[in-house]
Amino acid sequence: MNIIDSLEWRYACKKFDKTKKLNEEQVMALKKAFNLTATSYGLQPLKMLVIRSEELKSKLFPLAYYQPQVTSCSHLLVICAETDYGPEAVDAKFDLEKKLRGTKEEIIEKFRGQLREIYLKKEAAALDRESICQAYIALGNLMTVCAELRIDSCPMEGFIPSKVDEVLNLSERNLKSVLLLPVGYRAQEDPTNGLKKVRKRLEEVVIDLD
Amino acid sequence: MNIIDSLEWRYACKKFDKTKKLNEEQVMALKKAFNLTATSYGLQPLKMLVIRSEELKSKLFPLAYYQPQVTSCSHLLVICAETDYGPEAVDAKFDLEKKLRGTKEEIIEKFRGQLREIYLKKEAAALDRESICQAYIALGNLMTVCAELRIDSCPMEGFIPSKVDEVLNLSERNLKSVLLLPVGYRAQEDPTNGLKKVRKRLEEVVIDLD
Repeated sequence: MNIIDSLEWRYACKKFDKTKKLNEEQVMALKKAFNLTATSYGLQPLKMLVIRSEELKSKLFPLAYYQPQVTSCSHLLVICAETDYGPEAVDAKFDLEKKLRGTKEEIIEKFRGQLREIYLKKEAAALDRESICQAYIALGNLMTVCAELRIDSCPMEGFIPSKVDEVLNLSERNLKSVLLLPVGYRAQEDPTNGLKKVRKRLEEVVIDLD
Repeated sequence: MNIIDSLEWRYACKKFDKTKKLNEEQVMALKKAFNLTATSYGLQPLKMLVIRSEELKSKLFPLAYYQPQVTSCSHLLVICAETDYGPEAVDAKFDLEKKLRGTKEEIIEKFRGQLREIYLKKEAAALDRESICQAYIALGNLMTVCAELRIDSCPMEGFIPSKVDEVLNLSERNLKSVLLLPVGYRAQEDPTNGLKKVRKRLEEVVIDLD
């Protein structure tokens, strides 16, 4: 089972080799993987920034508590949630489905109406929580895709979202940052490189109900 | 990039072929993949139930709004969050690290103390939110692993967690259900099988900052 070997190979890389950059094909694969992430009802309330600029990385560095993976990575991915997420996303999704699949309105109108109703009733806090959860699905997907492509990554919640949003002008785009994922190649001198993985025993985390 | 083909192949399977079951090797791979999921500070506030029992699946069926993937799947995975998540998880993690890596206490004691302090201060709602987010990382990881192994799956938020918890006696285990992931093989007659994937254009969801 090769994918399990990939997950064993993966670790939260704290220091990347600055001299090694991802090529365009690799970056494109990560973009596609992000867009192929499953989301609630397929509403895709997420966007991803791909930061290559060393200047921007340096600006974000203190906002992520000076963690070296932010500036040493090849590309810094920022998984963002839409701040204007709501019933309009339902219409956009069904319109896209009609366009891409040629589905007729009479087939989808009932579900469209029900779903629009659900999203009209959702409060801001629930929509916020929902879009944030989707960002974590994208993170889980991207880390595994990176591992399978032997790209190192480091999942990061440790940064100041409001300040990152400010530096990246995210409010102008109706976005807010949820997670960072620096990607690239591990530096050989990264102190966590090669350490034994720390995980509970399988019997502790999995319960079989036969 | 083969993993991208896998993600293209994946879809939310609504009806599984009841006659086709995953073998033990496949189930073991999914268990390992779950356990290899990255979590905040490696604290692993999650557990996964693997339900094979047809009787249990039938009991859960109405609690998941009679969605056919719950009873037609080969195995029903239930991703659960620990309800007693807190500072004890910090100690458990560092103790495990000492055991598995032979790390000396003097090397980790400072970070252990800081992290314990952080978790002592976190309010119940923040801990709850955090453990739920981790469940979504596991979901994203598992869906991708399934796709790579050509195992069909269906990510599900649509069920009544409190009732599922009751049927599965999860409070006794200090757990609560967060997500369902039925897995198995798609039924050829599944109406969503073979439909074109609906996704926004890459240019709409990815922003390059060079």
